[in-house]
Amino acid sequence: MALQNRQYRLAARPVGMAKASDWSFTTEAVADPADGQVLVKVLQLSLDPAMRGWMNEGRSYIQPVGIGEVMRAIGIGKVHASRNPAFAAGELVAGGFGIQEYCLVEDPKKAALRKIDPRLGAPAQWLNALGMPGMTAYFGLLEVGQPKEGDTVVVSGAAGAVGQTVGQVARIKGCRVVGIAGGKAKCDFVVNELKFDACIDYKGGNVRDGLKQHCPKGVDVYFDNVGGEILDTVLTRINKHARIVICGAISQYNNTTPVKGPSNYMMLLVARARMQGMVVFDYADRYGEAVTQIAQWMKEGKFLSREDIVPGIENFPETMNKLFSGENFGKLVLKVAD
Amino acid sequence: MALQNRQYRLAARPVGMAKASDWSFTTEAVADPADGQVLVKVLQLSLDPAMRGWMNEGRSYIQPVGIGEVMRAIGIGKVHASRNPAFAAGELVAGGFGIQEYCLVEDPKKAALRKIDPRLGAPAQWLNALGMPGMTAYFGLLEVGQPKEGDTVVVSGAAGAVGQTVGQVARIKGCRVVGIAGGKAKCDFVVNELKFDACIDYKGGNVRDGLKQHCPKGVDVYFDNVGGEILDTVLTRINKHARIVICGAISQYNNTTPVKGPSNYMMLLVARARMQGMVVFDYADRYGEAVTQIAQWMKEGKFLSREDIVPGIENFPETMNKLFSGENFGKLVLKVAD
Repeated sequence: MALQNRQYRLAARPVGMAKASDWSFTTEAVADPADGQVLVKVLQLSLDPAMRGWMNEGRSYIQPVGIGEVMRAIGIGKVHASRNPAFAAGELVAGGFGIQEYCLVEDPKKAALRKIDPRLGAPAQWLNALGMPGMTAYFGLLEVGQPKEGDTVVVSGAAGAVGQTVGQVARIKGCRVVGIAGGKAKCDFVVNELKFDACIDYKGGNVRDGLKQHCPKGVDVYFDNVGGEILDTVLTRINKHARIVICGAISQYNNTTPVKGPSNYMMLLVARARMQGMVVFDYADRYGEAVTQIAQWMKEGKFLSREDIVPGIENFPETMNKLFSGENFGKLVLKVAD
Repeated sequence: MALQNRQYRLAARPVGMAKASDWSFTTEAVADPADGQVLVKVLQLSLDPAMRGWMNEGRSYIQPVGIGEVMRAIGIGKVHASRNPAFAAGELVAGGFGIQEYCLVEDPKKAALRKIDPRLGAPAQWLNALGMPGMTAYFGLLEVGQPKEGDTVVVSGAAGAVGQTVGQVARIKGCRVVGIAGGKAKCDFVVNELKFDACIDYKGGNVRDGLKQHCPKGVDVYFDNVGGEILDTVLTRINKHARIVICGAISQYNNTTPVKGPSNYMMLLVARARMQGMVVFDYADRYGEAVTQIAQWMKEGKFLSREDIVPGIENFPETMNKLFSGENFGKLVLKVAD
């Protein structure tokens, strides 16, 4: 019998949070690779807030996932069979594999298939600090946020995949770093293990008071992963010439009502500040530089890559929703195979 | 009998649009200038949307006007008497005079008192293209908007003081210029006299359709004077790396409900675009350069400075409110004396 491949396909465009009926869990035989193709056995898959956006219709920085298509996801896998001279069976690779157990990579370039070096980090770390979240954080902070030594940098979703790297890079660059996260456990982790200067618990306290207390000199850079009320509150505390990096708006992704725009955006005028969006793909030709730097910091013990690894492809739908309830602790990874 | 000075003082902080009872119209004797002081007879006063913000309490880029104080306003006047060697009776001057007939300038530097050259423009033009609105437009467009030749530049409030200069400077710099204004008469003026490529009538038509029609290549620079729904609509049409200059939000200044933030701000991410605030005072040391350039363009017939001059200091309260109903046509100026 041929190898069987199980996969999650988008069955319907969700309204609000995705529910079970928005997915179909299908099984099909794995095809053999044709000339130039690579068959990858998927080991781990990255679950990201951006996935919710890919499920909607409409213009964005990337095409939406079509109804009936395998849900898009980035993953780490092992080459199972290859008819492409650039990849050999047994090698570890990263790429856009989708939520499935095997991926027949027909066009390695389109899937961004590339070998990864296991000496630099474990597979889950290649989906976190050494992967898209890490690249997003690194270039978003340094290129768009442009922090200077001594600046106060605030980051929301501080215990999440992007937030943890933003804060640690800012700390290493000599900034005062204040996180915003939900719950005492996450805040303790952010301060004690990631070594931020402080972390504000938006569930247990008042963000406004927390910013007053922990950012006595105001906010120079705000890296926003959440949008909504927290963005509005931070806007009231920005310094002259502040830079706000718009990376995400996780509080708004499942909205069934219109997105809440930042009511306090006129603080941009008061502070002569700017709010700027970024998409990590724009920095693709510089990923190598960031991976080398972050791996070096990890080796020196200055930098921690923390993942929340959930086993079992069949757990994909409810695991993805953890992102939006704030239940995940660190970068959320779905483990498909050992 | 001593000279009498009539003046409008802020009596109460308005809720929504300012009403008659928010002002007191007082008369007092004019004091003689002491050593270093200058007594100015006010000729014309600039009425600006920003004045509404100065009437509110709370943090902004400038202190609010105190209750009982003469309402702040920039004006053009003639030196009536001087005990300051830098100013002589009869000279034309600009400065922060307030809504009154005479201003005793105690501290010429604090009032930004400076001589104006009547050969470069009429007094009302010194309040428009050669004054704060012109400086705001010139530096906001060129320094923050950074238009390149061939870019599509959209400006709201296109027939207003700032908008008319933004569009004309962008046209001279080789951009495609599309205005947004209220009513056919204003749109005709913008196209026929200011020579914009097109003007969208937000009262008579649909802004979204107008942008599709007149900005077939999308929007590279949006200079926003109005905020609200128009800002949200333009956000749906921005190009990659677009620059949005936040200069004002006249649609929101009289709100009694919270300001409407731009719901489509996540388009900043999709487009890797930025939204940036500006305050004209930051460019004070470069005003001379802009005045010289704009006066030169006026002389060459490339640039028009259009004012809506209303006579009579006693008409101040209702004249100021014209700004928010969109009734003014060009830069709104209150004529106090000949």
